[in-house]
Amino acid sequence: MRKHIFNAGPCKLSDPLLKNTSEAILDWNGIGQSILEVSHRGKDFQAVMDETVELMKEVLSIPEGYSVLFLGGGASLQFAMIPFNFMKSKSFYVNTGTWSTKAIKEAKLFGDVEVISSEDKNFTYYPKGYNIPDDVDYVHITTNNTIAGTEIFEDINVKAPLIADMSSDFLSRPVDVSKYAMIYGGAQKNLGPAGATFVIIKDEMLEKVVDRT
Amino acid sequence: MRKHIFNAGPCKLSDPLLKNTSEAILDWNGIGQSILEVSHRGKDFQAVMDETVELMKEVLSIPEGYSVLFLGGGASLQFAMIPFNFMKSKSFYVNTGTWSTKAIKEAKLFGDVEVISSEDKNFTYYPKGYNIPDDVDYVHITTNNTIAGTEIFEDINVKAPLIADMSSDFLSRPVDVSKYAMIYGGAQKNLGPAGATFVIIKDEMLEKVVDRT
Repeated sequence: MRKHIFNAGPCKLSDPLLKNTSEAILDWNGIGQSILEVSHRGKDFQAVMDETVELMKEVLSIPEGYSVLFLGGGASLQFAMIPFNFMKSKSFYVNTGTWSTKAIKEAKLFGDVEVISSEDKNFTYYPKGYNIPDDVDYVHITTNNTIAGTEIFEDINVKAPLIADMSSDFLSRPVDVSKYAMIYGGAQKNLGPAGATFVIIKDEMLEKVVDRT
Repeated sequence: MRKHIFNAGPCKLSDPLLKNTSEAILDWNGIGQSILEVSHRGKDFQAVMDETVELMKEVLSIPEGYSVLFLGGGASLQFAMIPFNFMKSKSFYVNTGTWSTKAIKEAKLFGDVEVISSEDKNFTYYPKGYNIPDDVDYVHITTNNTIAGTEIFEDINVKAPLIADMSSDFLSRPVDVSKYAMIYGGAQKNLGPAGATFVIIKDEMLEKVVDRT
């Protein structure tokens, strides 16, 4: 019997998805090879990736000018990659719990981090009405905090590029993607298996990457 | 019917491995959940990772003082991560074909790269008898070159830390791991599915990582 999962860990995946995946491991589309044995650069597998990206764009109404990436390493690797890639000198973080605390720790390795926090009341509220300087390289928020139990349901307006960790409420509501420079998360909570990370990124951001060589 | 694969792309995986994986996708060890639905931090899944690391150490007779890592991104990501992590000022590359050419391109972003190459004869031989300065941060070789068709069958002696891309001949012969600072490769040729990268690294190297923040 298939168990349901109610905790904040990995999500239950759909039965057809598991059935199709299980069959593809043994013999993919009747080609006599496992999907694990085909070239990741072959056109058949590329078609799977292309379809996944297109579905993501469709489901979330992602506008033109954004790329959808599937990466390894989990959202925690992005805690480091975001400041590594985008922090020239200064960033702004909204600290709403365990995960944003970890993200801030990484960012501090790369420069000045201005922080607004709800730590004064043990992260039991979502900070509001704060001022964000326009000159920061980016603003980072965590939209849902599984441990503290807080969530922001609106897409906030900021002038600086807005980056959101949506690991645990991704696809739970429509999102105005155009307000974000980057949306990312570990796949395991709302999307797929642990080990995959989704990144939706405004193409303009890719031109702003800091050269650290 | 299961097809054999004779080209230099992804390897054929064993039938029991595919059968067990296919079953675990539907219901892992009869727990009523897919292996894709369990926590990657849970003890059951950790046991799978621990066993995989132990098997790698056993099969390759990896001595004490080495760590075995499974990472995302493919061997090509390591082309960049190696100079990023270990190149303070100078490295030495043996250029034996397509893949080492790509690795050298990344390394040149980080400092001086001294190269010995067989490009003069279209990579049809493996360079021998060259001198390597002792003061380089590391020496990089590609043990097998699928496109050029050359391979080195001995573990060479160098004073500087030796790093080897063994993507396409990994586990095809016993290797004296103690001669290497790092052995790495994409899993898809000789080990497992595309998307996984194996890294065997001397723990001492982890203390030499360059700080680029």
